Amino acid sequence: MEKIRMILDCDTGHDDAIALMLAAAHPQIELVGVTVVAGNQTLDHTLENTLNVCSHLGIDVPVYRGCDLPLVREQLVAGDIHGKTGLDGPVFGPCTMQAQKEHAVHFLIRTLMESDGDITLVPTAPLTNIAMAMRLEPKIIPKIRRISLMGGAVGMGNASPAAEFNILADPEAAHIVFTSGVPINMMGLDLTNQVLADMQIIERMEAIGNKAGKLFGDMMRFTFHTQKINGLEAGPVHDVTAVAYLVAPQIFTMQPMAVSIDLSHGLCYGRTVCDVNGRTGDDRNILVGLGTDLEAFWNIVEEALRLLP
Amino acid sequence: MEKIRMILDCDTGHDDAIALMLAAAHPQIELVGVTVVAGNQTLDHTLENTLNVCSHLGIDVPVYRGCDLPLVREQLVAGDIHGKTGLDGPVFGPCTMQAQKEHAVHFLIRTLMESDGDITLVPTAPLTNIAMAMRLEPKIIPKIRRISLMGGAVGMGNASPAAEFNILADPEAAHIVFTSGVPINMMGLDLTNQVLADMQIIERMEAIGNKAGKLFGDMMRFTFHTQKINGLEAGPVHDVTAVAYLVAPQIFTMQPMAVSIDLSHGLCYGRTVCDVNGRTGDDRNILVGLGTDLEAFWNIVEEALRLLP
Amino acid sequence: MEKIRMILDCDTGHDDAIALMLAAAHPQIELVGVTVVAGNQTLDHTLENTLNVCSHLGIDVPVYRGCDLPLVREQLVAGDIHGKTGLDGPVFGPCTMQAQKEHAVHFLIRTLMESDGDITLVPTAPLTNIAMAMRLEPKIIPKIRRISLMGGAVGMGNASPAAEFNILADPEAAHIVFTSGVPINMMGLDLTNQVLADMQIIERMEAIGNKAGKLFGDMMRFTFHTQKINGLEAGPVHDVTAVAYLVAPQIFTMQPMAVSIDLSHGLCYGRTVCDVNGRTGDDRNILVGLGTDLEAFWNIVEEALRLLP
Amino acid sequence: MEKIRMILDCDTGHDDAIALMLAAAHPQIELVGVTVVAGNQTLDHTLENTLNVCSHLGIDVPVYRGCDLPLVREQLVAGDIHGKTGLDGPVFGPCTMQAQKEHAVHFLIRTLMESDGDITLVPTAPLTNIAMAMRLEPKIIPKIRRISLMGGAVGMGNASPAAEFNILADPEAAHIVFTSGVPINMMGLDLTNQVLADMQIIERMEAIGNKAGKLFGDMMRFTFHTQKINGLEAGPVHDVTAVAYLVAPQIFTMQPMAVSIDLSHGLCYGRTVCDVNGRTGDDRNILVGLGTDLEAFWNIVEEALRLLP
Repeated sequence: MEKIRMILDCDTGHDDAIALMLAAAHPQIELVGVTVVAGNQTLDHTLENTLNVCSHLGIDVPVYRGCDLPLVREQLVAGDIHGKTGLDGPVFGPCTMQAQKEHAVHFLIRTLMESDGDITLVPTAPLTNIAMAMRLEPKIIPKIRRISLMGGAVGMGNASPAAEFNILADPEAAHIVFTSGVPINMMGLDLTNQVLADMQIIERMEAIGNKAGKLFGDMMRFTFHTQKINGLEAGPVHDVTAVAYLVAPQIFTMQPMAVSIDLSHGLCYGRTVCDVNGRTGDDRNILVGLGTDLEAFWNIVEEALRLLP
Repeated sequence: MEKIRMILDCDTGHDDAIALMLAAAHPQIELVGVTVVAGNQTLDHTLENTLNVCSHLGIDVPVYRGCDLPLVREQLVAGDIHGKTGLDGPVFGPCTMQAQKEHAVHFLIRTLMESDGDITLVPTAPLTNIAMAMRLEPKIIPKIRRISLMGGAVGMGNASPAAEFNILADPEAAHIVFTSGVPINMMGLDLTNQVLADMQIIERMEAIGNKAGKLFGDMMRFTFHTQKINGLEAGPVHDVTAVAYLVAPQIFTMQPMAVSIDLSHGLCYGRTVCDVNGRTGDDRNILVGLGTDLEAFWNIVEEALRLLP
Repeated sequence: MEKIRMILDCDTGHDDAIALMLAAAHPQIELVGVTVVAGNQTLDHTLENTLNVCSHLGIDVPVYRGCDLPLVREQLVAGDIHGKTGLDGPVFGPCTMQAQKEHAVHFLIRTLMESDGDITLVPTAPLTNIAMAMRLEPKIIPKIRRISLMGGAVGMGNASPAAEFNILADPEAAHIVFTSGVPINMMGLDLTNQVLADMQIIERMEAIGNKAGKLFGDMMRFTFHTQKINGLEAGPVHDVTAVAYLVAPQIFTMQPMAVSIDLSHGLCYGRTVCDVNGRTGDDRNILVGLGTDLEAFWNIVEEALRLLP
Repeated sequence: MEKIRMILDCDTGHDDAIALMLAAAHPQIELVGVTVVAGNQTLDHTLENTLNVCSHLGIDVPVYRGCDLPLVREQLVAGDIHGKTGLDGPVFGPCTMQAQKEHAVHFLIRTLMESDGDITLVPTAPLTNIAMAMRLEPKIIPKIRRISLMGGAVGMGNASPAAEFNILADPEAAHIVFTSGVPINMMGLDLTNQVLADMQIIERMEAIGNKAGKLFGDMMRFTFHTQKINGLEAGPVHDVTAVAYLVAPQIFTMQPMAVSIDLSHGLCYGRTVCDVNGRTGDDRNILVGLGTDLEAFWNIVEEALRLLP
């Protein structure tokens, strides 16, 4: 069976780290590269976190430094959720990995242009890197097989009442990506807020007994409480769903909808406006995640973690 | 027991008509007057519909003609839901009632200023009349006991993906009312889309055997299908919940939230932006309806209809 | 010769006071009434100022209290220009006049509806009163002969880089008035900033030797310096041009333009967007003042002041 | 004397072509490269126009293909002013020049990073290329000596009543550049609409008797009439002022102002909001051109044209 070739575009963060572990370990996935962007924290932090996770678990994948500011708006980070470093909780030893010299945006353009159109992008962060690549080299657009992204919400936001963090942190980038014509599935809060690492899940992953399981625990014990401000009983692993969708789309409930980004600079700036019932008659351009088979989902995660050191 | 003195502010419409029937018939309510505004249809239609319902059922209440245009935006009507007249379906005989000479806004101001602060406003329409009264005579604001309104949504809209019809039809008026400081309960789509007049309900009301029950049936058989564009299996009786709340608040699930109106003129213009989890720290100024005991609700409606001719 | 019947709608203010003096004294004008609104200062101040000027000069005209808040936006006053009272500078004796009981908006509606369509409105303030009257009774619109207003700018604003004070203080009201279809001439900053009461003008009016001339001096000596923040060498008598236009339109350079109000809530909120060259192809709905014959203008003012006590 | 090292960033266009001629010919200027962007026409046209001008006049400078779409908004071109090709009028022979392989944005980044901070950017087009370079490699920002740009307006726009074409064609890019902290002088319509190639100027340049003078004539005879829609009697050479400022700043009247870009998506989208009088107290970050010594200006142009073939 052919592997799914993917690039992870992340702002590592707790759930990004688990998405990275799943992408690196899953036998059906070939992780071509990891591009990093500012988001949950500033770029220096999110890059360091990514390298730390790779170094700690011996994940051998090229990591690329990307954009450190959103396209248009002033920067927004999520220190309240992810802590001062963006990945508070775990303690890492000395980092043995370095970022590549090539800029993430160049890596994306080069890799896509050299490909046969078989690469899937998995952004679990503000869409700055992807949008920059699309504007710098529009020829990459038909080369992207699919974008499986974590972001947005049909219902409530988390970074504002109307908007989810990844989209609010760079709404103009999201607009570029959402109107690009690439097949997109959007794993938004409606889905991801259901996928909670509660204490039972945490202990189950820790019980694997390897470094990966311990890292899962160290991380998700930190976010266990920080998400109370969003009304959640435990930390959701938002970003992991965007990777899991690639290997097991059948476990997710998806609905095609016309989705537009609010660029108004008003109360709903950064909202993914979803036309659930199709009233506008606009093209149902985005496949939106609404639910998942939680048992199947956690089995996928656990099996992948077992394959790591 | 003291009666609840209320003024119904409506754009009669199918569900407005049932709200009017409930307000007129319920023994705990004293319906002081009915003010009419443009909304579901133009003012000529909504006024005629209101007078027809009163005339048909012998409801003896003064009816006042109000504003025929929204404050700022261009006019929006809901012909797709309520038909060409705004109350398609039933056939009325000759109308024996006339509107009062006084303007609805003046009636609101005069009545509130003469009151002891015991009057509740129940708007089931765009908030133009109420907002105009508040701006023309700000002294009425502390005189209003409560505003129990139908409008808005925590989740999806119906007139646009982001906005509910009554708010989208006059967002600036809604902003004036929502920021007035009057105690407000908002019965939005999250609640009202659950309150469907399905065929069992329609037949139950028709089985009462009086004119009121037959009118209920004639109306709700018309909207039985028109709400498919909103993904509904039958016609919701949105507006009735705003009246029912006055006599049976205990049957409704309510949550206090900070609610603001999007005035951006963008994709979310007219959205009631609800801070469900309190992330903004803004004052939880609005009591938002989220659910109801449907059995208790329909019992209240049926008992009231039985008291009408 | 028939007199021009006009209603002055003002937020008295230094230049409003002179506009009032001109309207009251000019033999070709019949001043039917004065309606007052919040603007340069809160309504209590602007009403008191209006009554003080009338009382001081024995101007016998009914004065009506109007709206104390803008339609939609939060209140904005111009204390930096007009001082704490809105008319700092002159000292008035005890006031012998009282406002009428009728609300300004009702007076406008009643007077216009009873008229033969011969009444001109001269707003020298935020357009709240006029907009409220238009929305409350749309039938007044074809009854208004003309609106000669002070407000807006083709070029720079004064209350913000983009917007003039009277429009910025209630942009939504301005939108209602500008789109009403009534013939409008807009005396904006491009014109009015040229009409400065410099020391020569001040001394000339004081030299008349009556109370009116002295009041002119007491007022314009106060604003002689406050307009430095707008780059002006002396105080402009903005509002007076809107009255003078009625009796001497030939001394003004006017150009018809399509003018729209920016309602975006962004940097240009409240800007009168003027399509000077007609690029949009929109109807040239507004006659915009660009210049005047200053000698003729000041002669008109002086002659009127001489007719007052 | 040290030469001024500059990169021209253009969307050639009639006036861009003359700016290019001036930059290539002036003895005080070293034209390091020319980067091209979509603007007056689509990128294919503006690139072809640039290469044609260089080929026709034997201008030996590397030309780089840049961005073909604005950052966020939909594309806007100016076919009404510059014709179907973007440079209607002159007829060129076969083109002997080719664009470089390197992307304009990469060329900008590479050249700036390799420089001693002595390079001035002269954008006479939408600011997409410059903004993309700034976001892709923020370290270039302190390396840019100055940006001398054509764009914006204190007063009226030309592409809309509120906005000038280069800014309206990519307002978000303009926002990035204007807030970058680089010293900027903005040569806007207030200045450039005064710099008209009337028939006397056209004949004077043609009288030089070389190819460059003839090209000037062929081009400016075409735009002689197209600018009537902006109320102009002849074609302005907007872009040339941005180059001329480098060699003769003393002939321009400049004023420092706080300038912000309207990103509201409303009537004033793309307006350069200029705080002429400093009312906002914001930092006077932009040096804005308001006038020039026309005789000195045209002398500079003529002398440069004489140095070309």
